[in-house]
Amino acid sequence: MDLFAKFVESTSNPIADLSRSIHGTAAFPRLTGNIGSRMTYKGVPQVVWSLNNYLGLADDPQVRALDIEFVDRYGLSAPMGSRMMSGDTEDLEAFETELADFCRKPAALFLNYGYQGMVSLIDALLTRQDWLVYDSGSHACILDGVRMHNGRARGFRHNDVERLAGVLARIERERAPDEAVLVVTEGVFGMSGAVAPLRDIVALKQRYDFRLLVDDAHGFGVMGPTGRGTGEAQDAHDGIDLYFATFAKAGASIGAFVASSAEVVWRLRYTMRSQIFAKSVPWPIVASNRVRLDLIRSRPQPRQRCWSIAEALQTGLRERGLEVRGTASPITPVYLAMTAAQAGEFVETMRLRHGVFCSAVSYPVVPPDVVQLRLVPTAAHEPADVDETLEAIPAAYAAMTGRPAPTPAAPPTVE
Amino acid sequence: MDLFAKFVESTSNPIADLSRSIHGTAAFPRLTGNIGSRMTYKGVPQVVWSLNNYLGLADDPQVRALDIEFVDRYGLSAPMGSRMMSGDTEDLEAFETELADFCRKPAALFLNYGYQGMVSLIDALLTRQDWLVYDSGSHACILDGVRMHNGRARGFRHNDVERLAGVLARIERERAPDEAVLVVTEGVFGMSGAVAPLRDIVALKQRYDFRLLVDDAHGFGVMGPTGRGTGEAQDAHDGIDLYFATFAKAGASIGAFVASSAEVVWRLRYTMRSQIFAKSVPWPIVASNRVRLDLIRSRPQPRQRCWSIAEALQTGLRERGLEVRGTASPITPVYLAMTAAQAGEFVETMRLRHGVFCSAVSYPVVPPDVVQLRLVPTAAHEPADVDETLEAIPAAYAAMTGRPAPTPAAPPTVE
Repeated sequence: MDLFAKFVESTSNPIADLSRSIHGTAAFPRLTGNIGSRMTYKGVPQVVWSLNNYLGLADDPQVRALDIEFVDRYGLSAPMGSRMMSGDTEDLEAFETELADFCRKPAALFLNYGYQGMVSLIDALLTRQDWLVYDSGSHACILDGVRMHNGRARGFRHNDVERLAGVLARIERERAPDEAVLVVTEGVFGMSGAVAPLRDIVALKQRYDFRLLVDDAHGFGVMGPTGRGTGEAQDAHDGIDLYFATFAKAGASIGAFVASSAEVVWRLRYTMRSQIFAKSVPWPIVASNRVRLDLIRSRPQPRQRCWSIAEALQTGLRERGLEVRGTASPITPVYLAMTAAQAGEFVETMRLRHGVFCSAVSYPVVPPDVVQLRLVPTAAHEPADVDETLEAIPAAYAAMTGRPAPTPAAPPTVE
Repeated sequence: MDLFAKFVESTSNPIADLSRSIHGTAAFPRLTGNIGSRMTYKGVPQVVWSLNNYLGLADDPQVRALDIEFVDRYGLSAPMGSRMMSGDTEDLEAFETELADFCRKPAALFLNYGYQGMVSLIDALLTRQDWLVYDSGSHACILDGVRMHNGRARGFRHNDVERLAGVLARIERERAPDEAVLVVTEGVFGMSGAVAPLRDIVALKQRYDFRLLVDDAHGFGVMGPTGRGTGEAQDAHDGIDLYFATFAKAGASIGAFVASSAEVVWRLRYTMRSQIFAKSVPWPIVASNRVRLDLIRSRPQPRQRCWSIAEALQTGLRERGLEVRGTASPITPVYLAMTAAQAGEFVETMRLRHGVFCSAVSYPVVPPDVVQLRLVPTAAHEPADVDETLEAIPAAYAAMTGRPAPTPAAPPTVE
C-alpha cells in the first residue's frame, strides 16, 4: 500500500483525527502580544493560564535587556557545530559548573533540547542487558526513551510505590549479576500537577539495587524551599542519582540538563547521541540561561508569588465546588463533567466571552465525559486575574449546560 | 550490578574510552573569537575549516543586525509552550509557507530541532506493519529513527542502488497488501561529502512502491543551481516525497523542516511526538530563519563563492598528491596514512604550529591506519586561507612522520 495514503487515512491517532475541527482553537491557538499573563486571542484580551512561566521570567526586564546584549555580542549563529566537534564555549562550561553547584551534585551536563536529551540519556545509560523501570504516567520523552531501549522495560502504576516495589522485587529475583536497573519518574507530572513520592521511592534503595532518574521539568525552580526541585521539597534530593530538568518552564528558555556524579556526567558527555550528533544551542541562549539560573537562585519572591497565586486559585475553585484534586504543585487541574464535543466549545466560550485562556484536554486523554482544564499560575499573575477566572468558569459552564453550578468530575486514574 | 559502576567502567564506546586523552583537543576543542573562518584556538589564530557555515551567514552583518532587532521585539522566551498548546505564532506559519514555496512542495512543517525531528518523523510515518529501508551510512538521527521503529527495517550498502533494488525486490515479494515502504537516505553525507544517487533511487519507483525521505542537511542552500538541494542538482527533486533539511548548517541557525504533500504535513503536525511534546523554538530564531531563507534564495554569490573555495581547495590538495576521494559537495575529506595515536598529534600540530583548524576522525570511524581530515569550505573563506592550508598539511605531515610527502590512504568503505 502507498505509505502516504495509509498515513493520511489512518485513524489511529484521535487528536489527529479531530484536527480539522480543533485547529486554531483547542489545538494550535494563536496568542498575540507581549509574552505573559495578559495576551490577546482572536482580538480579545485574555488572562492567560497556559504558559509554564512559573517565575515570570519570560518578560523579566533585566533578562530581556541582557538577552539583547548577548545577541549583540555573540550573534544567534555561534557556535556552529556540535559541542564535541567545534561548538564548546566558555559559557557552556561555566554554566555547567553553576548548574552542578545549584543542584548540589558533583557535575552537570547541559543538553541542547529537553525532549531529545531525555531519550538519549536513557539510551546512553542502559545496555540491552539492563532493566528500565518507569512510571506509566510519564511524559512522552520518557516513554520514547523506553521505546528506544532495546532491553527489558517494566512500567509501574502511576505514583504507586507498592507496585514499584513489586516490580523491583521481581527483577531482583530474575536478573543476572551483571544486569543493572534504572528507575525513571517525574518530580511534578505536568498535566495533573501530581508529585511523585520521591522520598518513598528513594527509601526502596535500602531493599533493592537501582539508580533513580527524575525528570523535574515542572519542579525545577518551583518546588522546595530554595527552588531546587521536588527532591528538595521532600528532603529526598540526595537519593536522586540523576537529576534532569529543563529551562523551558521556570527558566522560560530552551535547553535542559542532567546533574549527577562527575564520572557519570563525563561519560554522558561522550555517549549521548542527541548531543554528539546535533548542534550546540545558540550562545546567547546559554548566556541567558546563566542569568536565569542566577535569578532562580537569588530571588525567592517570584517563587513565593507563584505559590500564593496557586493557593488563591485552587482554594477559590474548591470553594466554588469545583474538583481540583491530585495536585501538589502550582499546576491546577479542574475536572468538569462534559462531553468531549462540549469541551472545545467550553474553552472557546471561556476565551471569547470571558477573556480567560486556559488549555483543556478531553477524550481520549481523559474519559469521554470529562474535560480537564489545566491552569498554570505564575508569578506574573495578579490576584485580580484569579478573581476573573473564578467568575468565568462557573459562568461559562452555566451558559453552556443550563445548569447553574458546574458538575465536578472525578480525575481519571492513570494505570 | 550497580548501574553507575557498569556505565562508567564500560568499554563499549571507543570515543568515550579515549575521552580523557582527547578532551579539549580532538574532542570538545574550544574556538574563541567572532564566529567565522578566522578564530583563535589556545591563543593561536586559526583558519577554521570545521564550521558548516557554507554560505557565511553566521557572521553576516545584515543577519546580525536583524537578530538584535528580533530579540528586542519578541524576547528570547516567547512563545512559551509547545506549538499545539500555546506556542504557535504568525512567523511560524508564514515561515512554513515560504519554506514550502522555496522547496517547491505543497506544504512544510518547521521542527524545533533537527535530530529529534528526524527521529519523530520516521516514528510518526510508520506503523509496526510498515517497512523502513535506509542507507547504512546514514547520520545518527536517521539510525536512531530506525532504532525507534518497531517494525521491520532493512539497511542497504551505502549509496549502492543495486543493493537497494535488491532489498526492495525482496520486500515486494514478502509484504502484505496493507504494508507500506519508506526509503530514507541523505542528500549529502556530512562526513565524506558523498552524494546519494537520488536520480537512480527515484527511478526505482517505476518498479517498486515506496516513498522517499531525503535528509538534505548538508545540501540545503548549497547544492543545485538555486540552492534547493541535492534533488535539484540531480533533477530528481520532484521524486523526493519528504524533503527534510536543517537550518543548522547553511542557515547557521537551529531548527529543521520537512516539506511534503499538504495532507501529509497536516497530519505530521498532529502526530510528531518531539514537536507536540516539546517547546517551540524562540520566536527570534524563527524570525531570523525567515531572513536567512530569504538570503539563501536571493543571493547566488555566497553559494558560488563556497563552491569556488571548495574547488580551489580540492584541486590544490589533489595536485599535492593527497587523497580527496568520494566527495561531490564542498565537504572535503582528506585521507592520510597515519596511526590513530598520531591523528590527535597531527591535528594539534596543524592548529598550534600552522594555525589551520580542521576536524579529524580516526579509528574506529575509519580503519586503524587512516585519519580522515574533514574540511568545510565556506563563502567566508579567502583564497589565501586555501593557500595556507595547502602548505600546512604536507608540512605538518612531514614534521611528524619524517616522510617528505604525505602518504595518501584509501577512504574506508561503508557497508
